[in-house]
Amino acid sequence: MDNRPIGVFDSGLGGLTAVKKLMELLPGEDIVYFGDTGRVPYGSRSRETIIKYTRQDIAFLRSFNIKAVLAACGTVSTTSLDFVAGDLAIPSFGVVKAAALKASNVTKNGKIGLIGTVASIKSHKYEDLIKACLPNAEVVGVACPLFVPLVENGRIHRGDVVIETVANEYLAPLREKCVDTLILGCTHYPLIAGIIGDIMGENVVLVDPGAEAAKFLANELAETNRLNERTSGGSYSYYVSDSTDGFSELASLFLENDVMGEVKQVSLDSF
Amino acid sequence: MDNRPIGVFDSGLGGLTAVKKLMELLPGEDIVYFGDTGRVPYGSRSRETIIKYTRQDIAFLRSFNIKAVLAACGTVSTTSLDFVAGDLAIPSFGVVKAAALKASNVTKNGKIGLIGTVASIKSHKYEDLIKACLPNAEVVGVACPLFVPLVENGRIHRGDVVIETVANEYLAPLREKCVDTLILGCTHYPLIAGIIGDIMGENVVLVDPGAEAAKFLANELAETNRLNERTSGGSYSYYVSDSTDGFSELASLFLENDVMGEVKQVSLDSF
Repeated sequence: MDNRPIGVFDSGLGGLTAVKKLMELLPGEDIVYFGDTGRVPYGSRSRETIIKYTRQDIAFLRSFNIKAVLAACGTVSTTSLDFVAGDLAIPSFGVVKAAALKASNVTKNGKIGLIGTVASIKSHKYEDLIKACLPNAEVVGVACPLFVPLVENGRIHRGDVVIETVANEYLAPLREKCVDTLILGCTHYPLIAGIIGDIMGENVVLVDPGAEAAKFLANELAETNRLNERTSGGSYSYYVSDSTDGFSELASLFLENDVMGEVKQVSLDSF
Repeated sequence: MDNRPIGVFDSGLGGLTAVKKLMELLPGEDIVYFGDTGRVPYGSRSRETIIKYTRQDIAFLRSFNIKAVLAACGTVSTTSLDFVAGDLAIPSFGVVKAAALKASNVTKNGKIGLIGTVASIKSHKYEDLIKACLPNAEVVGVACPLFVPLVENGRIHRGDVVIETVANEYLAPLREKCVDTLILGCTHYPLIAGIIGDIMGENVVLVDPGAEAAKFLANELAETNRLNERTSGGSYSYYVSDSTDGFSELASLFLENDVMGEVKQVSLDSF
């Protein structure tokens, strides 16, 4: 048993899609969430800047005596987490490994599509992990830089010519390559999974890395006997680096539920 | 005569549209530009965060012994500059005042449209300045949060259904109000002035605050005898807070010219 909280962070609030899954799987766990809303987005920034921000994010979460940290951010998981994880005395989890395993297990034709931020696609991290499982797999990566601002501006509905035009353009090379599995490599993308699924067709399996990572983390904690002794009634606290104004509205979009727990603004300058 | 450089900054690289105008008007001036590419965008952040970032940006530029600072950023000019300017021993200029004066002079029906970031529209800064000139003016502000990511992703061409759909939606309330003048309240917007002009119609005058601010600053320096003694051959240096990779490509879009001068990455943590 280990009653310390789990730390979860993301560049913004998209990582709450993974928190939602964790809450379902492990209702007894306490969760501390940090969203770097004062510096979001990460996905268009350089690797060195993403590494610097990741160090600060984790240092902040460690001030809560967490037992494990989940980087619920596609960009961090592909670009900076390995670089920072070596220095930690607690286990760290990204969203890549579980999703790469899932995609490798699910694909039938060995053609796996990946959509993500510019930094995630550049990293080749998914490709490396998938090829370790399936050496002959072909991974087709496409950066989709407009998906995050479009989702954050509410362009998530079928029939919206803006999101549908952009999605059709981004996904065209994946359709041409006949991928049968598509990794939604950014925590914002599950919100437009319906539109993506329509374009890709019903035979393409969509893999949600945030949900897969939550399952993976839950299994790890169970297997190493580090679950909280409670099995329900976990508490939640949320920290952001910009104002908490509007937090509840956007957060509830990703949590698909009302926000329960305290929400505070913090400065990471001293971390 | 004052041979010290002029400092110019923006949340990103959009402020280079004002630098371009300054270069044309005052070819003898040295210019130091800072683009906060590690923390862009500012326009969707809270006022307190924008104030904090603005203080750091100006402190960095002051390390070059500048004679004046131009905030070539719509969001800073509307939201934080007044708050920070009081502490400075050098003159500071934003992009609002000159554009508000220009719009007040140009309008015939007293109905002035304003497009900008969420923070800029919230600030009511343009409205206050315009009403000081024209007490009966009606200012109609519309936040256009998708314009910056769309411009940065190259969706700036006539015939692109994505930018045209979004622009038509954002501009509809301004057309309904029959504004005869429209302030392009963000330094990215001049790049889609053609599309905006098509939608608004040829009788609506578009005001570019970056260009107006550059003219205003040039006049001020001339009138107070603080121009550089050179009248040509000014030097340019550029600093950014993220990697310099890709700087030249994006910067030349805003400068409408190749980048001349050195480009360096800096950290603002100690400012």
